[in-house]
Amino acid sequence: MKKALILLSGGQDSATCLAWAIKKFDKVYALTFDYEQRHKIEIKSAQKIAKIMKVPLKIMKIDLFKEFSKNALTDKSVQIKSPKKGLPSTFVPGRNLIFLSIAAIYAYQLKIDNIITGVCQTDFSGYPDCRKDFIDSLNKTLNLAMEAKFKIHTPLMNLSKAETVELMAKLRQIELLKHTHTCYKGEANPCGTCPACKLRLRGFKEAGIPDPLKYE
Amino acid sequence: MKKALILLSGGQDSATCLAWAIKKFDKVYALTFDYEQRHKIEIKSAQKIAKIMKVPLKIMKIDLFKEFSKNALTDKSVQIKSPKKGLPSTFVPGRNLIFLSIAAIYAYQLKIDNIITGVCQTDFSGYPDCRKDFIDSLNKTLNLAMEAKFKIHTPLMNLSKAETVELMAKLRQIELLKHTHTCYKGEANPCGTCPACKLRLRGFKEAGIPDPLKYE
Repeated sequence: MKKALILLSGGQDSATCLAWAIKKFDKVYALTFDYEQRHKIEIKSAQKIAKIMKVPLKIMKIDLFKEFSKNALTDKSVQIKSPKKGLPSTFVPGRNLIFLSIAAIYAYQLKIDNIITGVCQTDFSGYPDCRKDFIDSLNKTLNLAMEAKFKIHTPLMNLSKAETVELMAKLRQIELLKHTHTCYKGEANPCGTCPACKLRLRGFKEAGIPDPLKYE
Repeated sequence: MKKALILLSGGQDSATCLAWAIKKFDKVYALTFDYEQRHKIEIKSAQKIAKIMKVPLKIMKIDLFKEFSKNALTDKSVQIKSPKKGLPSTFVPGRNLIFLSIAAIYAYQLKIDNIITGVCQTDFSGYPDCRKDFIDSLNKTLNLAMEAKFKIHTPLMNLSKAETVELMAKLRQIELLKHTHTCYKGEANPCGTCPACKLRLRGFKEAGIPDPLKYE
């Protein structure tokens, strides 16, 4: 039986990866993180999506980022900004490093080799830990750390946001995106104006497919 | 000013690295982990050593290993065993991966590039995450994750336990080892018979230097 563990944030990208994973693997497990993120509401989305898609979901709490790092996602006193040069204020240093490392430790326990994440370097918001070279290096590091044979799958790595929408349409799961959460501000209805909302809206627009989400 | 962050477990190796680091860097910060280890008493050693050496110590609590992993260091129902083939039961999958990743996130916040750890592949107890190829791969991964210039220093990597004792003698800090904790069983006085105690005792014996620690 081919098993996989997916990082399910509750956003559009990980929901699309989940639909992809269910086609590709016999049994899929999901893992989500409560890291005191501003948009904690996405955990509810992850729960809803896992329930609809019938995959077991583990929620893991980590205080690390709140404690160690000054960024706009875990500290509400920091403004959401994307400067032309340098890293955006929403960059959480080491987030994907920690998420994928914990996923690997969990996968090791479950005897799973395949780990899936929705990172993407095309529309990557300027985050270095969404790039292919980082993922490749981490994959090697994880295997050396545990004498393991993990394979990190990144089905969206080279897709534009429009192509991600098209992939979901092809998988006949566009309706699932109604339950996803994208907005950084963490409100029930997305703002439509933060960098995450803008990226999502542009993707749907370019794909010529309506976003099933209700905006403010 | 040259700054460094050291992983200080409270054991012989990290105490030796601290004595080394204080000679090499202008300002040293220390980080220790409370991961619900059987030998939690080592945290008290870390506090004592940090106090003597006048370095600020941060204690970070992580529940991850207790929750995810079945091993003899975080689960008292698992016996301490070192089989001839395969990994010892005291191997905590992903421990150095997580410790060093968290250290890097903390170092990023403190604007520190140098990270020091006492891992050693010579007398490495069979742990894959003490080997040089793992450390080199992780170093690269950490820099890619955060667009950083971290350098992981491993002054003990190629030393035998006897050479580690000799290094401490050369640094004129043998007495500091009186406050270190090595025994896996976590008792106030070390057992002298578990794999960690045996390795330590052999090192002192081979170096021809008495261990300042009082055994049972």
